Amino acid sequence: MNTITLTTDFGTRDWFVGTMKGVLLGINPRAAIMDITHEVPPGDVRAGAFALMAACRYFPKGTVHVAVVDPGVGSLRRAIAVQTEDYVFVGPDTGVLSWARAREKIKTIRQLENPKYFLKTISRTFHGRDIFAPVAAHLSRGLSLKKLGRELKDFVRLPWPKPEERGGTLCGEIVYIDRFGNAISNIAAGFVSGEAKAICEVIGKRKMRCVWAEFYGAAPVNSPVAVVGSSGFLEIAVNGGSAAQRFGLKPGNAILVRTN
Amino acid sequence: MNTITLTTDFGTRDWFVGTMKGVLLGINPRAAIMDITHEVPPGDVRAGAFALMAACRYFPKGTVHVAVVDPGVGSLRRAIAVQTEDYVFVGPDTGVLSWARAREKIKTIRQLENPKYFLKTISRTFHGRDIFAPVAAHLSRGLSLKKLGRELKDFVRLPWPKPEERGGTLCGEIVYIDRFGNAISNIAAGFVSGEAKAICEVIGKRKMRCVWAEFYGAAPVNSPVAVVGSSGFLEIAVNGGSAAQRFGLKPGNAILVRTN
Amino acid sequence: MNTITLTTDFGTRDWFVGTMKGVLLGINPRAAIMDITHEVPPGDVRAGAFALMAACRYFPKGTVHVAVVDPGVGSLRRAIAVQTEDYVFVGPDTGVLSWARAREKIKTIRQLENPKYFLKTISRTFHGRDIFAPVAAHLSRGLSLKKLGRELKDFVRLPWPKPEERGGTLCGEIVYIDRFGNAISNIAAGFVSGEAKAICEVIGKRKMRCVWAEFYGAAPVNSPVAVVGSSGFLEIAVNGGSAAQRFGLKPGNAILVRTN
Repeated sequence: MNTITLTTDFGTRDWFVGTMKGVLLGINPRAAIMDITHEVPPGDVRAGAFALMAACRYFPKGTVHVAVVDPGVGSLRRAIAVQTEDYVFVGPDTGVLSWARAREKIKTIRQLENPKYFLKTISRTFHGRDIFAPVAAHLSRGLSLKKLGRELKDFVRLPWPKPEERGGTLCGEIVYIDRFGNAISNIAAGFVSGEAKAICEVIGKRKMRCVWAEFYGAAPVNSPVAVVGSSGFLEIAVNGGSAAQRFGLKPGNAILVRTN
Repeated sequence: MNTITLTTDFGTRDWFVGTMKGVLLGINPRAAIMDITHEVPPGDVRAGAFALMAACRYFPKGTVHVAVVDPGVGSLRRAIAVQTEDYVFVGPDTGVLSWARAREKIKTIRQLENPKYFLKTISRTFHGRDIFAPVAAHLSRGLSLKKLGRELKDFVRLPWPKPEERGGTLCGEIVYIDRFGNAISNIAAGFVSGEAKAICEVIGKRKMRCVWAEFYGAAPVNSPVAVVGSSGFLEIAVNGGSAAQRFGLKPGNAILVRTN
Repeated sequence: MNTITLTTDFGTRDWFVGTMKGVLLGINPRAAIMDITHEVPPGDVRAGAFALMAACRYFPKGTVHVAVVDPGVGSLRRAIAVQTEDYVFVGPDTGVLSWARAREKIKTIRQLENPKYFLKTISRTFHGRDIFAPVAAHLSRGLSLKKLGRELKDFVRLPWPKPEERGGTLCGEIVYIDRFGNAISNIAAGFVSGEAKAICEVIGKRKMRCVWAEFYGAAPVNSPVAVVGSSGFLEIAVNGGSAAQRFGLKPGNAILVRTN
């Protein structure tokens, strides 16, 4: 259990992430510390939850995943650790851990309250460094979750927008825009596979329509295309361009898949 | 002594930092190389000095901290290594190391002049790769600083703006704006702790006033708030927004704390 | 053979790179994974090729270099691995590997077609994670390239613009703009060394002329200067500023060196 991942909204412009790594190495010098991303938009719990969900299962069993998107740092939101069959998740109970854990069988949830595993001085504004990093480092060395605090029955679950079937049309929504401007939806691959002739409509700033393809380059250059993306969800792309920019797509936009 | 940190203004867009890591690993394959930040604004020695100061003490004893903000690369500024009680600092003598070292007991300062520990070919524009990385890697393997060059009596010390007390008002200044738009001042926590009723005024583009709180979320959403930040200094924040953007705050702006 | 480098256009805003690292560690937990850059402009094969060329030879012998700039992901372009005297290169056969390999003696080129060394499920949009990362991890553990697939005679070679001599003037072009706004040309150091009095002209938006110097700071502040940069090529810089911004320089602009 020596790999630790970090998913935060701290950015890489300042010293915040570096400082967390210092704390991690101070406790577990042999940890392999891997960044998932630190560019989650500040306070955007859903974007952080999506990134963690998309990446976590590609890491080896036993990895400790730390995710800190924490608009309420210093307030009364709880700090938690969750043991699943394959991983340990550590972070604030803001929902940022919840989509990743939805796929995992949960063994135990613990509140982080034992100061023995925190830094000695706890700031009110940087629990990533003072609480989550030291706890994660101890866990990566094999510390039992029991030592951290009381068992919890549940944690904050971010609602996952489920696609709905309405009269031959599957209605979903855009949940994430990636760096390439691809608009990733909540419609999982299983819902749409094999429907090669499906037509996909997105209602953003204006309505746009696109055909289905197996990969980005299968559409004409600069044309919109619907593909099953690498995270396993239907996404809207533009071959050689940004779908989000071109069509003004945003999280929350409706996406309709018609199979007639 | 196997952890090496990097603080630079090289950015991550090009290959500069990656190249330094290649050099480090070539000499010390077991080094744990950690980025503090590479997004120091180009040539901004003060911002680099602040980042290093804020992060360095969270790393394990024996860490080699490399900081390269070096507007005068290739010119006659010296290259130095400094052994303190806990760390070794390596970089150009531009002042970028000086705020971090202010907190550390200095044991020896050496000029980097022994080419045995440099790359064989030294460019005039990239000493981070050709001098600082190889020296740091050798130091992380236990090389004595004595081997590097002559002992120096002193190094370039960046002036640290000290807050002043004037008739019941503590006068400081903004020294750093972080990614969240929090404006970090030079007023250390010790000066202001316990003054729960203190009023804080910042004179930027226009004068703004804010109350004191224990953490960001304790202020109303979108309201300015003065908190003791995680780096141990008073900072001005906006709950859920960017104080720098909203009030036009910049390094150098005066910040006044009144306790009446 | 335990160091693996990554050069991509995936950015660091999403989870793509983190996911590749998860896959790498799952197969080779002892790999030292180093980022060269992930900020190659989306689909810009030349920029990726230049970054890899500039950085790769600073890594220890045996390093596995993975480069993924892959506008045609999912289409029929080949996936390849190349063994040179010092390194192994892995990536799509888009030309992104070709400038780096131009300096290396090639031992064998293999097509990646043995699914035993891929992830079990291959997406059509993210071969970085599903093919290149697992292959690189196996190679870093010592897998012979023979196991990967058939031997290839050649690979896609990106044309390298060679500078031309015309009547006492060396005519080259800008090939890369770095984060500092330095405009790096295709004119190698060997062509220009010692010509201290050379005058350099760049024809961008408008014609600009600059003198030669040994390093950036040798020119007056805010003046343009031609130097031999750290990647071994002539570059145009502005002391304390951005040459690209100030003079509107772009890749493809002509650069003329006159020695009269």
